[in-house]
Amino acid sequence: MSFGFELAGTDGAARAGVLRTAHGDAPTPTFMAVGTAGTVKAMTADAVRATGAKIVLGNTYHLMLRPTAERVARLGGLHKMMDWPGPILTDSGGFQVMSLAKLRKLEEAGVTFRSHLDGSAHFLSPERSTEIQHLLDATVSMVLDECTPHPATYDEAASSMALTHRWAARSRAAFFPREGYGQFGIVQGSTYADLRRESADVLGAMDFEGYAIGGLAVGEGQSMMYEMLEATAPFLPVDKPRYLMGVGTPDDLLGSVARGVDMFDCVMPTRAGRTARAFTSAGVFNLRNARFMDDDAKLDARCACLCCARHTRAYLHHLIRCEEMLGPMLLTMHNLTYYQSLMILARAAILAGRYAAFCAETRAGWVT
Amino acid sequence: MSFGFELAGTDGAARAGVLRTAHGDAPTPTFMAVGTAGTVKAMTADAVRATGAKIVLGNTYHLMLRPTAERVARLGGLHKMMDWPGPILTDSGGFQVMSLAKLRKLEEAGVTFRSHLDGSAHFLSPERSTEIQHLLDATVSMVLDECTPHPATYDEAASSMALTHRWAARSRAAFFPREGYGQFGIVQGSTYADLRRESADVLGAMDFEGYAIGGLAVGEGQSMMYEMLEATAPFLPVDKPRYLMGVGTPDDLLGSVARGVDMFDCVMPTRAGRTARAFTSAGVFNLRNARFMDDDAKLDARCACLCCARHTRAYLHHLIRCEEMLGPMLLTMHNLTYYQSLMILARAAILAGRYAAFCAETRAGWVT
Repeated sequence: MSFGFELAGTDGAARAGVLRTAHGDAPTPTFMAVGTAGTVKAMTADAVRATGAKIVLGNTYHLMLRPTAERVARLGGLHKMMDWPGPILTDSGGFQVMSLAKLRKLEEAGVTFRSHLDGSAHFLSPERSTEIQHLLDATVSMVLDECTPHPATYDEAASSMALTHRWAARSRAAFFPREGYGQFGIVQGSTYADLRRESADVLGAMDFEGYAIGGLAVGEGQSMMYEMLEATAPFLPVDKPRYLMGVGTPDDLLGSVARGVDMFDCVMPTRAGRTARAFTSAGVFNLRNARFMDDDAKLDARCACLCCARHTRAYLHHLIRCEEMLGPMLLTMHNLTYYQSLMILARAAILAGRYAAFCAETRAGWVT
Repeated sequence: MSFGFELAGTDGAARAGVLRTAHGDAPTPTFMAVGTAGTVKAMTADAVRATGAKIVLGNTYHLMLRPTAERVARLGGLHKMMDWPGPILTDSGGFQVMSLAKLRKLEEAGVTFRSHLDGSAHFLSPERSTEIQHLLDATVSMVLDECTPHPATYDEAASSMALTHRWAARSRAAFFPREGYGQFGIVQGSTYADLRRESADVLGAMDFEGYAIGGLAVGEGQSMMYEMLEATAPFLPVDKPRYLMGVGTPDDLLGSVARGVDMFDCVMPTRAGRTARAFTSAGVFNLRNARFMDDDAKLDARCACLCCARHTRAYLHHLIRCEEMLGPMLLTMHNLTYYQSLMILARAAILAGRYAAFCAETRAGWVT
């Protein structure tokens, strides 16, 4: 089956669609659970499926270091290794190289760095990143880009964006096309609307299977992020999926869908689950708080996940106080289910032409 | 339904039976997964069920400190709290008081101690232990005993045993009988066959619903443990279940079933799962070992658990190296399944009159 994106309906700038891939479909808007090292932390693959997730993300930087791309390939690819036959999107590794690796050296050719794990030397170029993602058998590969640091002057942003564009062309040339697989370009341009538009135009002409919007949620604030989405999304091809990288809170997701974004990924629901925080229809709770000690209500009255169906807030509080692994397991399960439900309900609202009302009702529910 | 034990068949001293309780049946021999603080570590209750487990164990010492017995009762009991509607056996708390608590003072009335968590003062008597287990809603309660330290002189063992007998009588008097619920006495007597027999006789006369054999697997070695089982089991009522506390390795289980034991509990399969060790039909593996890095075989060729059905040894090795929670989760799942399978196959072999051959075949498979 060929890789594709079908628009099922719109409501203002908000879009409901379907991403079609060699590994199955994902209705959009969609949230991709982060499976950094070949596992969504604290979750079996079956549990990830039970949250409603249709597509997950893997991190090239982590996987190239452990267990290595070549080993993943020998083991039959990432899908088989992690028991996730559905679509997998991998990032290019560039973002983590800049945030995690040591002794980085960025050049036109690529980036040389030392592993944060053992200090071993590695080189990542647009070609090698593309090859690694091919070895991992990523359904969606990302081009290697430079995530422009924030804040950046106009000249810094323009120069960084130009490098991203040159790397995008090299990544595209290195991409090995296969039926049902795709590669996404990444729009940069920092907080400058004209650069964002230019980036969308330049990358749009390269005819990627989809487009990511990068370099946001890096400290610029929600209103600036929205401003940049408004300066970018309208200039991206309407028939291609749009992916906002590394975003975000439930509120960020609602606001970004309203501005034409189709796909998201973020460690927030999984990381929060490991630090006792729960996203619910009533807002965010910290289950470590003593006020939950005798609370025999379910975590989220509107949720049907295993955690909410079977357990009380008091039990979750108990597990967290005892540092029992089941605490993070159940909260991760719930948080991912909450994120998936939010996207499923958003999609239904878009198709019903009542997305703004849905957002208002959802936000009104967040009382904590 | 009334609490009971039905013998379905024997092969030599080995017994196949069914434990019948208010919370369902458990075919024996059976292994009880340890759910210390109201959770089998690293497992959802559904995952515990999927291992084939029919009865789990809770630790009174841990639960009385957190979340407290009264709170468990307010939350509807341990079954509801931990999503385990099946039978639950709780220990008396005595063993952990002596091994974990601080500033212990053992008297005829009971034991005073300070919590290892916050130093708070607590008192555990036969009556209070029985009350706590009632509040927890334990299907099977254990009498408070003194687990005689090893080694003990004959006089020390006799004196300790006598205290256990007096506490057993007080525990029995404090027990609140309910349909389908039971209380087990605990045989002590250290490594002295005549004391073991005396203890079996004295407790047998108190007409408990079942009998535990305590004070073993505390350093006396497997052959002495077997000697004591042979000095005890024949003198216990034939129509009551026999539970060997805190045992043990798969080999210990096979040898103890051969000597008439029906029930076991041990942290071994769960703890091993959190330290990269796997019990398999081919023996014990440490999945941290680099030799598994490229091993694309399933963990145990004879196992149908989720871990074995879906993943390779190489993936487990990767998860462990990355310290991903899924490693302990999958290994715990497998280890508990292995223990359950061992008991299920043992039962079938007993009923088929080929238990000795089954043990020989199973042990021959353990090549590592």
